[in-house]
Amino acid sequence: MRIKLINPNTTQRMTDSMARCAREIAAPGTEIIAVSPTMGPPSIEGYYDEAVASLGLLAEVEAGEKQGIDGYVIACFGDPALYAARELARGPVIGIAEAAMHAASVIAPGFSVVTTLQRTCNMAWHLAERYGMTRFCKNVRATDVAVLELDEPGSAARQTIIDECRRALDEDGSDAIVLGCAGMAEFCREVEQAIGAPVVEGVTAAVKWAEALVALKLNTAKRGDYARPLAKRYDGVLSDFSPR
Amino acid sequence: MRIKLINPNTTQRMTDSMARCAREIAAPGTEIIAVSPTMGPPSIEGYYDEAVASLGLLAEVEAGEKQGIDGYVIACFGDPALYAARELARGPVIGIAEAAMHAASVIAPGFSVVTTLQRTCNMAWHLAERYGMTRFCKNVRATDVAVLELDEPGSAARQTIIDECRRALDEDGSDAIVLGCAGMAEFCREVEQAIGAPVVEGVTAAVKWAEALVALKLNTAKRGDYARPLAKRYDGVLSDFSPR
Amino acid sequence: MRIKLINPNTTQRMTDSMARCAREIAAPGTEIIAVSPTMGPPSIEGYYDEAVASLGLLAEVEAGEKQGIDGYVIACFGDPALYAARELARGPVIGIAEAAMHAASVIAPGFSVVTTLQRTCNMAWHLAERYGMTRFCKNVRATDVAVLELDEPGSAARQTIIDECRRALDEDGSDAIVLGCAGMAEFCREVEQAIGAPVVEGVTAAVKWAEALVALKLNTAKRGDYARPLAKRYDGVLSDFSPR
Amino acid sequence: MRIKLINPNTTQRMTDSMARCAREIAAPGTEIIAVSPTMGPPSIEGYYDEAVASLGLLAEVEAGEKQGIDGYVIACFGDPALYAARELARGPVIGIAEAAMHAASVIAPGFSVVTTLQRTCNMAWHLAERYGMTRFCKNVRATDVAVLELDEPGSAARQTIIDECRRALDEDGSDAIVLGCAGMAEFCREVEQAIGAPVVEGVTAAVKWAEALVALKLNTAKRGDYARPLAKRYDGVLSDFSPR
Amino acid sequence: MRIKLINPNTTQRMTDSMARCAREIAAPGTEIIAVSPTMGPPSIEGYYDEAVASLGLLAEVEAGEKQGIDGYVIACFGDPALYAARELARGPVIGIAEAAMHAASVIAPGFSVVTTLQRTCNMAWHLAERYGMTRFCKNVRATDVAVLELDEPGSAARQTIIDECRRALDEDGSDAIVLGCAGMAEFCREVEQAIGAPVVEGVTAAVKWAEALVALKLNTAKRGDYARPLAKRYDGVLSDFSPR
Amino acid sequence: MRIKLINPNTTQRMTDSMARCAREIAAPGTEIIAVSPTMGPPSIEGYYDEAVASLGLLAEVEAGEKQGIDGYVIACFGDPALYAARELARGPVIGIAEAAMHAASVIAPGFSVVTTLQRTCNMAWHLAERYGMTRFCKNVRATDVAVLELDEPGSAARQTIIDECRRALDEDGSDAIVLGCAGMAEFCREVEQAIGAPVVEGVTAAVKWAEALVALKLNTAKRGDYARPLAKRYDGVLSDFSPR
Repeated sequence: MRIKLINPNTTQRMTDSMARCAREIAAPGTEIIAVSPTMGPPSIEGYYDEAVASLGLLAEVEAGEKQGIDGYVIACFGDPALYAARELARGPVIGIAEAAMHAASVIAPGFSVVTTLQRTCNMAWHLAERYGMTRFCKNVRATDVAVLELDEPGSAARQTIIDECRRALDEDGSDAIVLGCAGMAEFCREVEQAIGAPVVEGVTAAVKWAEALVALKLNTAKRGDYARPLAKRYDGVLSDFSPR
Repeated sequence: MRIKLINPNTTQRMTDSMARCAREIAAPGTEIIAVSPTMGPPSIEGYYDEAVASLGLLAEVEAGEKQGIDGYVIACFGDPALYAARELARGPVIGIAEAAMHAASVIAPGFSVVTTLQRTCNMAWHLAERYGMTRFCKNVRATDVAVLELDEPGSAARQTIIDECRRALDEDGSDAIVLGCAGMAEFCREVEQAIGAPVVEGVTAAVKWAEALVALKLNTAKRGDYARPLAKRYDGVLSDFSPR
Repeated sequence: MRIKLINPNTTQRMTDSMARCAREIAAPGTEIIAVSPTMGPPSIEGYYDEAVASLGLLAEVEAGEKQGIDGYVIACFGDPALYAARELARGPVIGIAEAAMHAASVIAPGFSVVTTLQRTCNMAWHLAERYGMTRFCKNVRATDVAVLELDEPGSAARQTIIDECRRALDEDGSDAIVLGCAGMAEFCREVEQAIGAPVVEGVTAAVKWAEALVALKLNTAKRGDYARPLAKRYDGVLSDFSPR
Repeated sequence: MRIKLINPNTTQRMTDSMARCAREIAAPGTEIIAVSPTMGPPSIEGYYDEAVASLGLLAEVEAGEKQGIDGYVIACFGDPALYAARELARGPVIGIAEAAMHAASVIAPGFSVVTTLQRTCNMAWHLAERYGMTRFCKNVRATDVAVLELDEPGSAARQTIIDECRRALDEDGSDAIVLGCAGMAEFCREVEQAIGAPVVEGVTAAVKWAEALVALKLNTAKRGDYARPLAKRYDGVLSDFSPR
Repeated sequence: MRIKLINPNTTQRMTDSMARCAREIAAPGTEIIAVSPTMGPPSIEGYYDEAVASLGLLAEVEAGEKQGIDGYVIACFGDPALYAARELARGPVIGIAEAAMHAASVIAPGFSVVTTLQRTCNMAWHLAERYGMTRFCKNVRATDVAVLELDEPGSAARQTIIDECRRALDEDGSDAIVLGCAGMAEFCREVEQAIGAPVVEGVTAAVKWAEALVALKLNTAKRGDYARPLAKRYDGVLSDFSPR
Repeated sequence: MRIKLINPNTTQRMTDSMARCAREIAAPGTEIIAVSPTMGPPSIEGYYDEAVASLGLLAEVEAGEKQGIDGYVIACFGDPALYAARELARGPVIGIAEAAMHAASVIAPGFSVVTTLQRTCNMAWHLAERYGMTRFCKNVRATDVAVLELDEPGSAARQTIIDECRRALDEDGSDAIVLGCAGMAEFCREVEQAIGAPVVEGVTAAVKWAEALVALKLNTAKRGDYARPLAKRYDGVLSDFSPR
């Protein structure tokens, strides 16, 4: 099966890192097509970044439909344009926050999300609400680490994150951690070992969820909201995006 | 004061009609700048339309900041890109669904939304939840009228809407109606007279809300989520959208 | 248009102060009729005060109907007898907590209410729930300032309130403040300047909301709960209150 | 022990009927003091009736404190002025809707409220929310029987109510009925026999709840909201109501 | 009337202590039959203990039906197997957490639960949700006292509990305490005197609630979920449990 | 990896059928150990059945821990004893209702559950609440087909279910169906083809979810509620169940 993992920001080095994590966890027989758009924000740290990034992301989904993709992973913790992507896709589309929260809710009575900037905390709360996960999500904690610092060599980012995860377990009544940024995928196991409690990371979780849904032959429902966009001609420089 | 009313679809005739309604209701001294983008969908009837339309909408907000705009109205019932727009704007930004639901909740114990296509009903429910209005919103009803049919001469659309409003009052335990599409602004009073109960229309409501907030000198809070987007360089054809 | 602002407590000096704030913000052409009952509690600091104060308040609404009032503002942060007042009034009736919370929810992702006595905090929470605003209301904070201390010359009340507002921003994850007492109207801008974040005050917000609703010709819905009270003869000393 | 049952409307014949029901169910050793105010509405069928009726009700609670009352029942299904009454009373104060909903939630997974006029349905929903009972309350149904018709000889009211209770069981997924008006107390068993499912009536339920709380020596908590009203001098004709 | 109080753990000394508390509070004419199963866990401190204890508990309910029992109290704060017990019983079945939370919600705007082990806190939250009491339950606090320590002579357990109750009042915005373990029944009044606020204990509360429901002739609804288990033959060593 | 699928009822023919479905969907390298207890109810159709069935189910989980099981599926739509099982297990434990609802929430904006008996509908609602899925679950519909009828040759059960699924799509605003009984696993695809919308079945969904969690090395969190039961000696005939 072919799973397309779309990093909606343009930072190829993050895409490469996610692709490595995805391929490591994928079942034999699963092909991971990992892409990022060539246009848009290099990192997504707010609603405006997210809105602009949606364009490139949706172009990749539409392209995927022609590539015979079986399922999609949206690899940014804000799960941008998730519903719009579902309108385009025949197969399942899953966000990494969605997959991570589902997984955490199965293995623990409560979890904390540990994320990057303070201004993205409400975005995580909105997602928890959208997926019905507020009853499991005990807290969302910012570390004030910028997304692109995460994989800078010699950065203190990892230790900062580990420290915040420990505080989450001690203070929030949580029993597991959800890492709130796709850029944290590569050091998930390292954090888990440091804190001695389950750490859920969305990229890998979403790949396995997508594989499961494809194996179950569960495609996106096309009766209602997620039906194909109505065919119409878009105007001006966006006419290439017209749904057909 | 200068209020910018942004119709996020590209259909100028809808923009003109909204502008008329807005100017009629505006206080003396309020200048209404009504625009629609030159790029993007001619009507917004789903999540994908909405995501693509956000680009032109946000460009108009950013332009507005240079035009000395005091407050913004997002004139599509899905209130697209509302939070992103708030990141860009210094003054208040209000969506027409938000304004209409607030107004209806003050004058009635419960309201029904009467909108266009079935596939947009969940969008209205999401908005009701986002604004805390689910306790007032008794039902969302589709009429299966397409957005662009609304002002076609000789169309049966108006009668269809009036009939659905009557059913809403009879069956939903609602005491007022919220019209769920910016394209319905012009016949709001006609519907009200036909059904004998308050009918709230978002374009006019949002203009008055925006005026009120500007008069109160209440600008968008810039401490947290709605702070200006972090300055960064976007890639490729979207580099013009880079937040500075 | 004629807006009647009813201070449900009997302290004329508070009524005068609110009237000043209301007139300053009102549009040209809006006449503010500011009254307080001659009977009842001089300040409202609990459920019992509120229940007794409702009588004078409702008498003023009923009188207003004969005065050709277009809209009403209930100027006590508990929004006492709001639904009963709506049964009496033809035009819109808005509470100051309701207006302030609506306004704050448009300009900020979350707000804190800063009020007077501890025992009124739950009242504010109930109002937040009633208006659907719990998702925006991050905290309600008491200052243990009594209502009538607020405008005593030389009182430390203002500084106490400013300090509590600062703590709210720092500790509650709020980006804006709602002042939780009509008596705080006069120093709203002073607090805003001191803390550097939007401060919403209900008297002025409600005046503008009422003006907006009147301009929109949105009257109280009379089909259901807010229909005129059934005509009946009340007994004993309350017979003058009989609905006709 | 002495339980004071306060019918907040002035219709003595309803008070007498409730007194009979209360005395029949009361334990030996429980004295029922049943009163109704001499001033105010003869029936309570809306928010305005309720607000005005609160005055006489609260006077009876205050009088009760001097009579050595151990617990109070507020005998109108809207549970008017419940929190204000708790401020005045040392012992427990329970509303008949509160007691009936608690009882019904213990014996059935879900109940329907069958009440009088349509316009009081939302009041019942508000009460269900206030007591946390929305998860049990499957529906609130009006019969369009006026309160004072209930005990008119030869009235069709009883049959109308029985028919509505049957529909509730069939259509709402409810397994029990809560009668939504104090005036229905006398024919509770008759309805139960007719429909073959538990019927909970608030006057009797509240008397037993009050007895239980008094026996448990559980008085109203006086630390927070329910502390005695602050002593202050009320103005004008309401000065007799001043809390001391 | 005959009330059967079932302690679902096997520790007879706890059963005896509860029986004393129950008999002291019971009305003249109420016979308390207090039992504990001869099989199962000696204390219930988690979901597994609870699941296994349910067997003996249900056997006692089934036996009770042959003994002519009028109402049942499940005397463990987790209210184990409450719905299953209601399927078996004709009369009302009430859990001690249910009764305590109901009682606390009548006398106080908010309460805290003070319980034994940390791992049982979520169980208490689940119960609060199930009974609609989350709006009253401000916090659940563990003392890390094991159930069986509670009545060990010379144990520091009581003081630990009193200290935690004081913290709850100071820090949680609660006005009353619910003791979260049946083993705390005997020192309820002692705690109340020490902290000066109402303390609700479930065994006694449930006995009075059960008496009230029996007096009201309110039996378990048998239309829906709580209908007798369908007759079927269970297999193997559990065949004695087959519902008939 | 070794996944243990536990059918908590004793009907081997259902276990065999589920095992077939599970093995068909399982990845190469996944061993399915499908068992049912030798003691307890042959079908689970209520709370009492469920409580008694928990004993055999938990014995199978405990046995599994000695068999080196990597993950567990509880194969009854009530997800009985799920939390207790998590206390016993090192690896993940997932219920079939939990897995099915998660899957359905990813591919559709809303789903209906179609189940067997009316009396189990509330159980499904409780599960939806427990998993945060009420916002997706539009309705739960009974077919009044008994569990053991489902695989009787020549039974009308399948057609009844297909008809109810169609009604669900038409009347509930749902876009997908969740089959609410493990016994329906074998005809999931048949129903899907008949109705033309996604049909989610829990046994297969849970097997894939369990595989995913095991692959992700996500074990049950052992810090809080799901820690191993405290070691203690159970009494009487249940002493074999004592946690060690």
